[in-house]
Amino acid sequence: MSHEPENRTKQTLAEQVAEQILNDIVEKGLEIGAKIPNEFELAQEIGVGRGTIREAVKILVSREILTIRRGAGTFVSERQGLLDDPLGLSFLKDKTNLALDLLSVRLMLEPEIAALAAVNARPEQLKELEELKGKVEELIYRGEDHTHADILFHRQIAACSGNRVVEKLIPVINSSISLFVDLTNARLGQETIDTHREITDCIIRKDPEGARCAMYMHLTVNRRMLKSLEGN
Amino acid sequence: MSHEPENRTKQTLAEQVAEQILNDIVEKGLEIGAKIPNEFELAQEIGVGRGTIREAVKILVSREILTIRRGAGTFVSERQGLLDDPLGLSFLKDKTNLALDLLSVRLMLEPEIAALAAVNARPEQLKELEELKGKVEELIYRGEDHTHADILFHRQIAACSGNRVVEKLIPVINSSISLFVDLTNARLGQETIDTHREITDCIIRKDPEGARCAMYMHLTVNRRMLKSLEGN
Repeated sequence: MSHEPENRTKQTLAEQVAEQILNDIVEKGLEIGAKIPNEFELAQEIGVGRGTIREAVKILVSREILTIRRGAGTFVSERQGLLDDPLGLSFLKDKTNLALDLLSVRLMLEPEIAALAAVNARPEQLKELEELKGKVEELIYRGEDHTHADILFHRQIAACSGNRVVEKLIPVINSSISLFVDLTNARLGQETIDTHREITDCIIRKDPEGARCAMYMHLTVNRRMLKSLEGN
Repeated sequence: MSHEPENRTKQTLAEQVAEQILNDIVEKGLEIGAKIPNEFELAQEIGVGRGTIREAVKILVSREILTIRRGAGTFVSERQGLLDDPLGLSFLKDKTNLALDLLSVRLMLEPEIAALAAVNARPEQLKELEELKGKVEELIYRGEDHTHADILFHRQIAACSGNRVVEKLIPVINSSISLFVDLTNARLGQETIDTHREITDCIIRKDPEGARCAMYMHLTVNRRMLKSLEGN
């Protein structure tokens, strides 16, 4: 039984253009404070209307990647998009390699965190973990984007760990996951369902070794998928 | 031969008062946006002059812990001191336990990072690592505060790892170290010198297993020290 759905995130045109503007900034190596082309120039360069450019710029301003100075133009923000992306990874090149680096860090942390969660989780936290697991499954079965729910699932495991630094740190790391959604999203539906269940069950059964191994398996399968994309 | 120097960080009176105001905010559970007592009240409460209070408040404003609204008073900042303390640990209670939680996270990450550094470091990065190791030793021998140099040493190991997420993440974690300096600083001078040397030598010799073990040793000794303080 396979449930591999077709759920590439559906982006609006403005969102796609926002991504492209960001990629251009990174590719051209534009520094913080650098001025970007005006609406008219961007519309010509990218081949979309000025309304779409305006909307795309708004998205990048709300993500603190661009900043508008009235009468002066639009600039690369000093805040470096740290709102959505506290580690500032948006501005680094070579996203597949970056996604592999992120996965290496998650491999160092998350199996241990899952083991801690199996030891320290409180009953009401387990209830929420089960609910989040169900939410991810539901979205996968419906063929919808499950990235956000997936991040909340991993964040809840961090909360279950009882380590307060972990609780603060995992959201910082996991907010980076959404930067790489396009790389693996929707390819690992059934695997995600199976290993999320195994992780949750081990944490509920208070089996730290099992939780650690299940999390390793989950991240390792993701890593293999990423590696297989590397050549493309 | 022992070189355990007496190098508790020497804080000015205003810095001490700033710490006390921050502790009061945490102890009283003041929320973001809450108004704190005025200069006059704080001076009476803490028993220092208003000039010192003014200076202490300035320090907390520069750390984004407090914010002044002209004509309205002084408030707990929405930025939660995230400038110096990106994980927002300043606002959490029970600092010894928090320091242990931080050390658990470092134990998950830094041995693996040291191993990666032994594999991936470039020659010019090794040169800088040696220099930073020397700088920490010099400060310990002179009986001066080596916290900042110590943080730079660990950050350089992260840079040597060749993992770009690690490079971004370790400064976030290590900036928290300075929150706990008072707990262990100056107690582990000779141990720091010895294990920093061992870590550096292993990285230079391209011995990942040795670097991993030396880092474990370094963090484990720190953990034991913290545990011994727990009862006090």
